[in-house]
Amino acid sequence: MNILIIGAAGMIGSKLTNRLIADGNLGGKAIDKVILVDVVEPTAPADAPFATETMAADLSSPGVAATLVEKRADVIFHLAAIVSGEAEADFEKGYRINLDGTRFLFDAIQAADGYVPRVVFTSSIAVFGAPFPDAIPDEFHHTPLTSYGTQKAIGELILSDYTRRGFMDGIGIRLPTICVRPGKPNKAASGFFSSIIREPLAGQEVVLPVSEDVRHWHASPRSAINFLIHAATIDGEKVGTRRNLTMPGLSVTVGEQIEALRRVAGDNVVARIRREPDPVIMKIVEGWPRNFAPVRAPALGFRSETDFEQIIRAHIEDELGGTFVA
Amino acid sequence: MNILIIGAAGMIGSKLTNRLIADGNLGGKAIDKVILVDVVEPTAPADAPFATETMAADLSSPGVAATLVEKRADVIFHLAAIVSGEAEADFEKGYRINLDGTRFLFDAIQAADGYVPRVVFTSSIAVFGAPFPDAIPDEFHHTPLTSYGTQKAIGELILSDYTRRGFMDGIGIRLPTICVRPGKPNKAASGFFSSIIREPLAGQEVVLPVSEDVRHWHASPRSAINFLIHAATIDGEKVGTRRNLTMPGLSVTVGEQIEALRRVAGDNVVARIRREPDPVIMKIVEGWPRNFAPVRAPALGFRSETDFEQIIRAHIEDELGGTFVA
Repeated sequence: MNILIIGAAGMIGSKLTNRLIADGNLGGKAIDKVILVDVVEPTAPADAPFATETMAADLSSPGVAATLVEKRADVIFHLAAIVSGEAEADFEKGYRINLDGTRFLFDAIQAADGYVPRVVFTSSIAVFGAPFPDAIPDEFHHTPLTSYGTQKAIGELILSDYTRRGFMDGIGIRLPTICVRPGKPNKAASGFFSSIIREPLAGQEVVLPVSEDVRHWHASPRSAINFLIHAATIDGEKVGTRRNLTMPGLSVTVGEQIEALRRVAGDNVVARIRREPDPVIMKIVEGWPRNFAPVRAPALGFRSETDFEQIIRAHIEDELGGTFVA
Repeated sequence: MNILIIGAAGMIGSKLTNRLIADGNLGGKAIDKVILVDVVEPTAPADAPFATETMAADLSSPGVAATLVEKRADVIFHLAAIVSGEAEADFEKGYRINLDGTRFLFDAIQAADGYVPRVVFTSSIAVFGAPFPDAIPDEFHHTPLTSYGTQKAIGELILSDYTRRGFMDGIGIRLPTICVRPGKPNKAASGFFSSIIREPLAGQEVVLPVSEDVRHWHASPRSAINFLIHAATIDGEKVGTRRNLTMPGLSVTVGEQIEALRRVAGDNVVARIRREPDPVIMKIVEGWPRNFAPVRAPALGFRSETDFEQIIRAHIEDELGGTFVA
């Protein structure tokens, strides 16, 4: 089988590529070829047990989607998006990349005769906007409070309608906040959820800008890749007409994150967290979802971590070679 | 003040025009001019106490939205859409008219410097798709089962985001099924809800294609116009960030419709209804919403009929000059 990954150069895209290389198959079917696409040409993996092709392509440029669809991949992972902060800061770019790009892709699939690929679309919990119930149920309405969330919610609607009409076989997955996100600290308002774990484990001091009672919804990068693989291989009949699913995750407070870090790595590591409340970040975080009660996705076999220590251990195993700076 | 009605030649658009002519003002502010736009040039009303302008324009043609926005109307009623059946039968036309047309309009408003009109957008209960709870709450998610419902749900999302960003001041209203719809019987699957009242009152026999226990959600044309007027004049601050509202309506069974007709017009009129169950129509109707529990719209002052006799009497008063064929 052939697989197309759009947005392959990002954190999720490269971890997905590595997972496909490790597995050599998808849902038990041997992989013949993986096509890696991003706005900047992804690096070709050296060690793949299948053919790979890399392409620089901007899905939001008219005509590009058709060239990608010509590859006739059996499975398309559509991960390409600009992030929430950028979509908010640059109105035109957000709608162009996140909405038009997605619609161009889905329309190119619709226009391709007899081609009905499985399309896995990464949506987001940003489709939800406050005020929320204590735990957001699967049936809660989408009232995004960001342009990014709006663009993802629209992508979900088109995916669902095009699947219902038989143009494609789409599954949309609403990812939790990915934690522990590897790499350098960034200026994203959500960055501290990861950096308060990642930096202390690397021997670095880190600033916690919110109070410890802030609650949020997490899954590890490893779980995110599991979600993508499961979404690519699940029986569409079982999913039914409601093609967009809130993924399972773990709702913990920042205080619970810190206590889990203490249990895994000890007091010395935790002592590297410095509390410096930032009213701007606290205000932003107030509007974010804190907890969900997903029923459908777990019933369909999607699994995530069940305590935060697992999330920390996944980071130590997958990113730190099993060790940390004690 | 100046008012722009896009989709002015339709049933709702012409009734809204007549209401503005009767009132001469909108929310207490004198109307200077009303601009009536539709794909076919609307008829200029002869008796308006304000200036009128009529235009033939297709909002889905690039550039047209900008010419409409140049009018700098204080209030825009965006009623233009192709109906559910047509949007389902003609994929390309539905997305072009109902989605692209709406986005072109909202984008043209966004691009106009310092212009932030009140925009009233007619959405639909078709944004909801089965399975439903007994009464659909305001917080229920949007999982449309038609392309029309998908296009309306996307319009709602863009309206909400553009309002949040300060580009416009939008209010989306999800209309119930309009009953009694005036005019000739048509082939819409929902047509019987109106025709079983309208045709007998006009002395005509009519076919009822479903069983009497079918339940549906109704409001009169008169209420629909009240909703539009109220949405045009309501304080946006009071509405808050959730700009799309399920309008109040009346949930009744077909049997209750018929008994109301009997009370208003007598046994002879009811005897003109012939029962001829149509499995195709029964199947379509099964997927439709039956009942809602709107809380926000009534709290914001939107009002509809509270029993079906009022809906029948509104039809007799507004369409039949106060009489019917006994």
